Parts: sequence; structure tokens; C-alpha cells
Amino acid sequence: MNAPASTPVTTELRINPERLWASLMDLARIGATSRGGVRRLALTEEDRQGRDQVVQWFRAAGLEVRVDEVGNVFGRRAGTDPQAPAVATGSHIDTQPSGGKFDGNYGVLAGLEVVRTLNDHGIRTRAPLEVVFWTNEEGSRFTPVMMGSGAFAGLFAPDFIRERADLEGKTVGEELARIGYRGAQPCGQVPGGMYAAYFEAHIEQGPVLEDADLPIGVVTGALGQQWYDVVVTGQDAHAGPTPMALRHDALLAAARMIEAVNRIALAEAPHGRGTVGFIQAAPNSRNVIPGQVKFSVDFRNLAQAGLDRMDAAMREAFALAAAQGQCEVGITQVTKYKPCVFHPDCVDSVRSAARALNLPQMDVVSGAGHDAVYLNGVAPTGMIFVPCKDGISHNEIEDAKPEHLAAGANVLLLAMLEHAR
Amino acid sequence: MNAPASTPVTTELRINPERLWASLMDLARIGATSRGGVRRLALTEEDRQGRDQVVQWFRAAGLEVRVDEVGNVFGRRAGTDPQAPAVATGSHIDTQPSGGKFDGNYGVLAGLEVVRTLNDHGIRTRAPLEVVFWTNEEGSRFTPVMMGSGAFAGLFAPDFIRERADLEGKTVGEELARIGYRGAQPCGQVPGGMYAAYFEAHIEQGPVLEDADLPIGVVTGALGQQWYDVVVTGQDAHAGPTPMALRHDALLAAARMIEAVNRIALAEAPHGRGTVGFIQAAPNSRNVIPGQVKFSVDFRNLAQAGLDRMDAAMREAFALAAAQGQCEVGITQVTKYKPCVFHPDCVDSVRSAARALNLPQMDVVSGAGHDAVYLNGVAPTGMIFVPCKDGISHNEIEDAKPEHLAAGANVLLLAMLEHAR
Repeated sequence: MNAPASTPVTTELRINPERLWASLMDLARIGATSRGGVRRLALTEEDRQGRDQVVQWFRAAGLEVRVDEVGNVFGRRAGTDPQAPAVATGSHIDTQPSGGKFDGNYGVLAGLEVVRTLNDHGIRTRAPLEVVFWTNEEGSRFTPVMMGSGAFAGLFAPDFIRERADLEGKTVGEELARIGYRGAQPCGQVPGGMYAAYFEAHIEQGPVLEDADLPIGVVTGALGQQWYDVVVTGQDAHAGPTPMALRHDALLAAARMIEAVNRIALAEAPHGRGTVGFIQAAPNSRNVIPGQVKFSVDFRNLAQAGLDRMDAAMREAFALAAAQGQCEVGITQVTKYKPCVFHPDCVDSVRSAARALNLPQMDVVSGAGHDAVYLNGVAPTGMIFVPCKDGISHNEIEDAKPEHLAAGANVLLLAMLEHAR
Repeated sequence: MNAPASTPVTTELRINPERLWASLMDLARIGATSRGGVRRLALTEEDRQGRDQVVQWFRAAGLEVRVDEVGNVFGRRAGTDPQAPAVATGSHIDTQPSGGKFDGNYGVLAGLEVVRTLNDHGIRTRAPLEVVFWTNEEGSRFTPVMMGSGAFAGLFAPDFIRERADLEGKTVGEELARIGYRGAQPCGQVPGGMYAAYFEAHIEQGPVLEDADLPIGVVTGALGQQWYDVVVTGQDAHAGPTPMALRHDALLAAARMIEAVNRIALAEAPHGRGTVGFIQAAPNSRNVIPGQVKFSVDFRNLAQAGLDRMDAAMREAFALAAAQGQCEVGITQVTKYKPCVFHPDCVDSVRSAARALNLPQMDVVSGAGHDAVYLNGVAPTGMIFVPCKDGISHNEIEDAKPEHLAAGANVLLLAMLEHAR
């Protein structure tokens, strides 16, 4: 008996959790660190080995592999309708210098597990499926971050990307050629046309799901980001002979600005974030009042109007703190990422899939950037978050529970099938 | 006609301002920096040249020179009563790495100018006079600071001092021998017994006199100091995915502690001082919430009870800020100098001298340490402050007005004569 052209799917279909976990652990051995993490920087020998491993798995699962001109790798599973645009999923396999096993890797291997599950059950979809890993999402060795997906979405020209150099002067183009991943396919072109939908499964990298004790986060969007460099200038002076009233203490003024950053973010609950991650005082000597302090501000919010309010509130608060502290302040905006709202159809598919699987869920937003944020500019996109231990990632102790990883992969399976069947 | 054994002195006696200024400028040429400052670190070749110059001036002014076992140099002018304890003045000629022309040097050369003035007028005093320069007051190359005066006052054993090493491993003992200033005289011994009085003229190193537009500060004491190392421990986490309420932001907690240090010092007006001069955040990356912040606290006050209150208030405020920020805090006291009250007779002599000279004056306290603070432990001691430009010292742009320097030297002259005649 011939299989029907497109096989009906039931919600009883499930991925194989042990196989997913085993593949995650296998991939984590490439670039493994002594403290249980992974160091697999983009376009290094470790990245080559990781890429070769995943490509081998892609081929073993019957996927047809393409590599584009910036090293993005696409594994394609044919559909019954060769003219239909593909439904895609993916993430990245490069890591931070002291990275973990799950960030990025999970999204790629969850996609592979979806394909393997469909193979197990002999299920063919109408639309083709693609599993992708994007070049240099982390940006640790080469900037900009989310390099491959940004080039795919048309934000960066391929020539610009290939000329980016690391600290030793080695370029992306040279390193792609060296490791055998400088492909022929033009960036952003997909057989049969741009994706009908793109999904990305990812560990949350934050504490919200764990705190709420929920396995699935339905990601409705990603926060926009505005980053600033701030310089507070006072006058350095002896800590002893200078009475409090006659000081121009740049660190005291900066401390009040740091408090203001927190207050401004709290006023934008629940999506506002305000962080001072970097600070440097001069002359930074224990018995000298600091004459200059430099620090960073990282504001995030889900709406541009909110970011604009935060910007205005910061300028007002910083001017006040500087004046109170008899200091000057200079503010320079250094980076801006617009807020991202994922496609309602994709968000609904994720939510429906979790419901069909009886998985407790909540709507969440991504505070960090992801390849999916750039994909959202060219295709309907959605994301699935699963909890990670203590909300920690970009760290060798990054951890996630097998049952949560399996739950997210099952949601991915059903969401992709909804669009591909 | 023979001069009387002790010459009557009138308040018309004045030092020679041009000669004082010329000597200051001459000494400032040794170790001069391109930006108008002086770099004459203790026991370097520059210090040797500076010492040789001052010793030559001492001898030319008829002073008998002694060097003690830690390199302190004493120039003695005989009195008519050889059994009388001497009246002394002095300071130091070593500088900070980017020091100025006046810090220390002024006190030594004002003392020399007092002697030259008495020589000009053929005035002999009953008690001997001494002009001293103390080894390594600044502590930039060797610790502890105020090394020579501390050894003289019996706080440091000479062997301990000679074993102190700089960053290259060179010891005080070796360097004293190399530059020819490892003397024979035991530390703390003075011919005729310990000083009847010790005075030190110094630039204020703070902005109080300039702010009040007064040429003379009558220094009544020196602030006690308590220094602390503080470590705030939170949890580093991604700036994006971590909601404000779930953060353990060590820098936000530290910012509130810095504000508390300021508040605690203001509550101890006018003599309380609170400074955070050093801060270091980890991982100090703009998009990571800082998991650890280290900073210093420098508290100063004129009474130990005040320092005790500041200590208690700090511990309470820091515990609160840590709890509010879901962080831990550790506080280690690293240094303690007790408050110093100068001898009322010496303070009165300075005040009376300024009055006799019709010089506007105010009582001030020294916020910084000085050789005079250690001398106060072994002899009646007083200090004279003159304004410095913008209150700045320990800086190549350190500056003072010739008329203020002359005024301070005239006060020193009359104050010393009151005790020596």
C-alpha cells in the first residue's frame, strides 16, 4: 500500500527524548571544557568539527545540505509539493568562550530531532522542512553578533561580513574557506522561495520560566535595546582635606545615576530592563575622590515608545544627578536594536502546540537577541523557550532538564507540522 | 659691642619672600616634569640630588647636619643655651609620581628661610633650632607612608623600615646606602633631648582656605582615618532576559552603599569625610548584570567616637542595601589612624603669630596625614596651612601664591621664636 501524499498527523506524535539528549551530549564533547562547558568559537577548528558532526547527522537523516556564502548551513527535507515554500527551524552551534551545552545547540538539534521523528513514523509533509544553523550568532570572535542570520535577512552585505576580522586579523572569509564552509549559495536565497514560517527553540537564558515553574514559554517578541556610554566628569581631589560640600565626586554622581537606571526600568514594568554592567573610575585610588567615571547603560523594552521614555527619563535624571554632584555628564548612544514582535500566526502555533500537548505555558518576551529576531524581518517567525537552571547561560554551568528540552522539541514538532502539512 | 646672649625679637621681623620662592623654584628643577610638576620619588637618584641641594643650603646657612639611620636629615642651629631642647620645623622633599612643587618642599624651605632670616638679622635664640626633612613621607615607592617621621616617633623599628622593598625588590636600607643617606644617628635621638616644640608649614591640599579667602589656617588637629575593603556578591546574569525583580545586581547594591557613605559623612559635619575612591565590577561587561563589585571606603573624623558612629552606620546601611538587592556584603577594615589633636601651646603660638602679623586666619583640621601627626606623639606639635590653588595637590598642576607662602613662613618664624627665644 502506498503512503498518502501527505500523511495525517495526530497530536500523539512525540519526539524521542533520549535521542535528543544523546545528540546534545555528543555535540557538547566537541570543544568541551574541564568545567563541563563548551568553547566552540565561530569558525575555529572546534566549530569545523561541530559543523561536520551536525552535517553528518543531517545527511544521515536524509537532509540535503546547502551552505551559503557566509557559511550558514541548511538541511532540507523534501515535501510532497516541491513548489511550496519551506517551513524552517534552527539556531546556532557556535558558543561563547566559556559557553554551555544548550545555547543555540538545542535549537539546531531539536530541529534535527523533529526530522528524525518524522522519519521514524514515515511522515511526509506537504511543504519542505529545513533545519538551519547560522554562522557566528554569539559574536565573541567576530562582530557583529547574529552575523549569519543578519546577512540572510539582508541586514549585512556578504562582502562586509567576509571582511570582518578577529583580534588576530583573520577574516571571516578566510576562516570560512579554511574550515570548508564558504558555500556557493547566495545569501538569503531559498529554493522554492522564502520560508513560509521559521521557528526557533531556545533555552530561556533568564529565570522567568523556572521562577514560574513552567516548561514552555510562548515567545511573543523580543525587547528592543538601546545602549549608551556615559562619562561623568568631576574633579579628583584628596579624600582627606576636601570637605564633603566642596567635592566634585564623579563616583557619587554615577552611583545616583545607576540608581536612576534601576528606577527608570522599574517604571516600565514588566518589560523594561535597565542595566549598568560596566564601570570604570579614575584615578581609582582608595584615598582620592574620583574625578571621572565611565559606565554603560543597557535599556531594553518591548515598545519603541517605552525605549523613548527611558531615554528621556535617563537624560533628565543624569543631568540632575550631575548638577547635584557638581559634575558634568556626557551621554553617547552606541547601539540600537528595534523591538521585535513575532508573527501572530507563529506565536499562535506555538501556544496551540503546547496546549495540545498539555504543557503548562506562559507568554514571555525574549530579553536577548536571537537569530529568530532577524528572521522575523523576512519570514513569519516564532520562538519557543524552555527553562534553564537558575536562568544562567553564557556560562560553563549552563544547564537544562531533559524533560524540558523534550517538551520544547515536541512543541516545535507540532508547530512546524501545523504550517507544513 | 657684643650682641646680647638672646636677642629681643620684634613682630617687625619678616622673612624674605623672593628668596623663599627662588629656593622653591630651584628645588623644583630637580625631577621637574614636562607639565610643570615634580617627580622625585623617595631614595631615587632625583631624591639624592634634592637631598644634596638642601643639605648644601643647610650648610651654607650655618646649620650642622646630622643623618639618622633611616635617612632623616636634621640641620641644627646652635642656641645660646646648649642644654635647651631644640625647637624644630620640617617636612619632606620626596614627591608623588606626578607631584607638585610645594607639597613637603614648602615646609622644609620655609624652615630654611626662617634660619636665613635670623642669620640676616644676627638673631640668636636661646634654644637651638632644627630644620628637618623626613624620609619617604609620600609612601609612593615604599610603604608605610610617613616612614621617617614614624620611625623617629618610635612607631616603626629602624630594621623594619630598612627591609621595606619597592616593586623591584630594592630595599630602603640598600637605597639609603646607595644614595649616601644611611646615617649613624639612632632613630629618635636628638642632642639635648627631644624637641621642645615642632612646627610644620604645609600647603592645605584642600579647598577650605581658598574657599574662605584666608591666607592662614591654624591647624588644630588631624582627622582619624578608617579604611575598609568591601565586597558585594550577587549573581551575574544576562541583562536582557533577567527581569528587574529577579536580579541580584551587585553594582546596584554597591551604588546604594556609595550613596550611604556620602550620607553618613554628611551626618558628621563639619569634620566627617566619606569617600569611595576605588571600585571594580565583575565581569564588567555592558550586557551582563554585575555579579560582584569590590570597592573601598575611606572614613575620616576628628574624634574616635565619630569614627565609631560612622562604622556602625555603614554596617547597618550596607546590610540593608545588600538585603534589598538580594546580595551579600563583606566588610574588612584595612587601615586605622587615630585622630590627632595638636598641642594647645603650639596651636596658640600659630594663632598668636598670625594675629601679630595681621594675617586673616581660621582654625582648620588636616584631613590628610602629615609628618607632624607622628611628631605630635613625642613632642608638642603644631601646623600652619596656607592655601593651594583649587585645593589640588599630588598633581603636577599643584600651585600656591608667593604671598601666601611668605605669610605662612612668617607665621612659622614667629611661632618658633616664641618657643626658642
